[in-house]
Amino acid sequence: MTTGLFFEDFEIGAKYSSQGRTITESDVNTFAGLSGDFNPLHTDAEFAQTTVFGERIAHGMLTVAISTGMSNWTGIFAGTTIALMEQNIKYTGAVKFGDTVHLEMEITEKKETSKPDRGIVKIAAKMLNQKDDVVVDMLWTLMMKRHTS
Amino acid sequence: MTTGLFFEDFEIGAKYSSQGRTITESDVNTFAGLSGDFNPLHTDAEFAQTTVFGERIAHGMLTVAISTGMSNWTGIFAGTTIALMEQNIKYTGAVKFGDTVHLEMEITEKKETSKPDRGIVKIAAKMLNQKDDVVVDMLWTLMMKRHTS
Amino acid sequence: MTTGLFFEDFEIGAKYSSQGRTITESDVNTFAGLSGDFNPLHTDAEFAQTTVFGERIAHGMLTVAISTGMSNWTGIFAGTTIALMEQNIKYTGAVKFGDTVHLEMEITEKKETSKPDRGIVKIAAKMLNQKDDVVVDMLWTLMMKRHTS
Amino acid sequence: MTTGLFFEDFEIGAKYSSQGRTITESDVNTFAGLSGDFNPLHTDAEFAQTTVFGERIAHGMLTVAISTGMSNWTGIFAGTTIALMEQNIKYTGAVKFGDTVHLEMEITEKKETSKPDRGIVKIAAKMLNQKDDVVVDMLWTLMMKRHTS
Amino acid sequence: MTTGLFFEDFEIGAKYSSQGRTITESDVNTFAGLSGDFNPLHTDAEFAQTTVFGERIAHGMLTVAISTGMSNWTGIFAGTTIALMEQNIKYTGAVKFGDTVHLEMEITEKKETSKPDRGIVKIAAKMLNQKDDVVVDMLWTLMMKRHTS
Amino acid sequence: MTTGLFFEDFEIGAKYSSQGRTITESDVNTFAGLSGDFNPLHTDAEFAQTTVFGERIAHGMLTVAISTGMSNWTGIFAGTTIALMEQNIKYTGAVKFGDTVHLEMEITEKKETSKPDRGIVKIAAKMLNQKDDVVVDMLWTLMMKRHTS
Repeated sequence: MTTGLFFEDFEIGAKYSSQGRTITESDVNTFAGLSGDFNPLHTDAEFAQTTVFGERIAHGMLTVAISTGMSNWTGIFAGTTIALMEQNIKYTGAVKFGDTVHLEMEITEKKETSKPDRGIVKIAAKMLNQKDDVVVDMLWTLMMKRHTS
Repeated sequence: MTTGLFFEDFEIGAKYSSQGRTITESDVNTFAGLSGDFNPLHTDAEFAQTTVFGERIAHGMLTVAISTGMSNWTGIFAGTTIALMEQNIKYTGAVKFGDTVHLEMEITEKKETSKPDRGIVKIAAKMLNQKDDVVVDMLWTLMMKRHTS
Repeated sequence: MTTGLFFEDFEIGAKYSSQGRTITESDVNTFAGLSGDFNPLHTDAEFAQTTVFGERIAHGMLTVAISTGMSNWTGIFAGTTIALMEQNIKYTGAVKFGDTVHLEMEITEKKETSKPDRGIVKIAAKMLNQKDDVVVDMLWTLMMKRHTS
Repeated sequence: MTTGLFFEDFEIGAKYSSQGRTITESDVNTFAGLSGDFNPLHTDAEFAQTTVFGERIAHGMLTVAISTGMSNWTGIFAGTTIALMEQNIKYTGAVKFGDTVHLEMEITEKKETSKPDRGIVKIAAKMLNQKDDVVVDMLWTLMMKRHTS
Repeated sequence: MTTGLFFEDFEIGAKYSSQGRTITESDVNTFAGLSGDFNPLHTDAEFAQTTVFGERIAHGMLTVAISTGMSNWTGIFAGTTIALMEQNIKYTGAVKFGDTVHLEMEITEKKETSKPDRGIVKIAAKMLNQKDDVVVDMLWTLMMKRHTS
Repeated sequence: MTTGLFFEDFEIGAKYSSQGRTITESDVNTFAGLSGDFNPLHTDAEFAQTTVFGERIAHGMLTVAISTGMSNWTGIFAGTTIALMEQNIKYTGAVKFGDTVHLEMEITEKKETSKPDRGIVKIAAKMLNQKDDVVVDMLWTLMMKRHTS
């Protein structure tokens, strides 16, 4: 297992990508039930036929939720993350049932803080589908542990 | 049921709030399984005791997911939402197992687009806990249907 | 959000209907696991081929469970329901995987009780599929809060 | 495994009871998500403190759903049930998180139909908690297969 | 309900089989989330196309998990099982989404222990698919209650 | 992300361990529903009080299921696993709700096969609780991809 990275270990420009995962009807149903979001775009096939998508699509936020899981699969956040501070999210494409998505991250910025035991890391994180279309484009800000000496 | 609001129906400054919901260990476990995010902050009680929180806390994104469900409970998005376009999210407080959160929304901005059948609505959306602390502070951008004539 | 209705607010003959929801294989599997009901009509495709339905069908009670969620989406029960007292349920049609159902309610009766802070409301509640066939025909009896003065 | 009973096999007055099951916060959360019923009686601990129950209680219909699973555990319905036709349900007590319930059934009535391959069976079905209070009192009507000769 | 069998009740050579159950995409997704096992064999349709299976397959352990449920459906373990001690498992075939499996058990061995209130029972347990191919071949060792006198 | 290991990459004696995970009532309920195993040891608190454990315990197989997820978190199996062939499992301790477990693996044996593109790897895998008691002791046999040249 890759050990979680400390603030010092992150390098600007370093890239990490995850394996893929197929978004299923069952994922969408579970997300609807967990979030309470039964917007008919996601859970009413008759209604969905009348939309521009022509079929039910995944909740955008389900794709974002899965991106956070994928980022943890890389192991770089395990045990060294103090907090997820901010997420700026642009939804740039619909995810249909059966699409397979994966995460690509790039470290874009590091900032020290007034506390010597931590630092801020910014990450450009994109979710892409099986055609390599970016479906969610994000900027994440995390507070990471720092070795002190 | 409140009918979903069209672009014209949104008024700057209008406020909507939802009933509350208690975030449970089961919610956190379901979210971990759905997202794949088993970061020990959320799922390892032994590790969590060593953190500043002293106990497992909910995934920030679970709280955001629940906020989207709560926004749908208001009914204002049902059938009139074309797409969720952007979400800017600041995590401002931890949610512990057993905390009860609710959503407060305020319409802050409306923008016409080049297409006459739709418009953009911006919403300040906050999740507050039972002590009225803001735990997530968000700005949402949605594309809503518009009556054309 | 529509505020929950008090006893006084219900009017005989008033009708409420909900948006639809597509019943999925995943809903049926989740219901089987939650209820413990793995009757082969619902969870064994080989067996189901030998029945009059020719395929797996949803648990009748899953459709009823979803009807209660749909009734809450209307908002009329939020915070003003003291208790669900009775449900009389007739299963009038099978729900197949992929069918889309919605709820139609009509207030049919109101009764005062000996206590001034509550009253009984009876509701005819039907679940219909995408062909407008009634698949479940119900009569619900609820105890609702009443304004006292 | 007890083979499913045919119409002929049911005897008026025969009783069947199931093992127990503890209703958990996780069951209630799963039911809320599956049904879409987030009524604050069940999912908002702050609100629930203001009710006569003083705490969150299980959805009545969750208890009914579990009763159907328990009836299947007896094996008497496996493969010989044509359809569940009717359920008349009286909710007679609240189920709190952590209560343990079980099912007691008694065959109360059998009716032939115009078709020789099936018959109707009526069953009084009660759910009792760990103090032997009846929390749900039901009458079920099922169409069962019949041996023809 | 068949009462759970005591040590004395088990007979060498006795066979028990269960009804079937169709393994679904939703089962696989739930298992992935519960176990945390998102190996792309099971959850990435694009990757799975490149394997010898040509499509996603169920986790072997999901099939084993379901076999334990099926063994409980027989009722023979209810309330008389002290502990499951050992399981030796050979995976002999892939389970594809939509396959229907069932359990066949045969009692193969009984052993007394130094304690008079219990005994050890060994069971050959096989999971077979709809073509009667054995997909999992197991030997289970259980500690069962014994009548003492 | 650690790339999945090929047959050549495994070294006898190499050890891998995972982060921990707290087993919850919700995990046990989800496993009961997925497997169909509602044995009262796991889901009936009243019954469980009468056992040697004095309380509900996790399904042994749930702990095994979680061990497979934990082994995937290490990344060593991602994309290079052809099949899980065998698992020999000894249950050596009960897991109570709230216990935190983790996985320790050691590569114990490698075997070539008649096919040059694959090889067999045997792994001693143990699940330990927060007191470092081994609760499940396993031997896994996997078929892994091999570089051919």
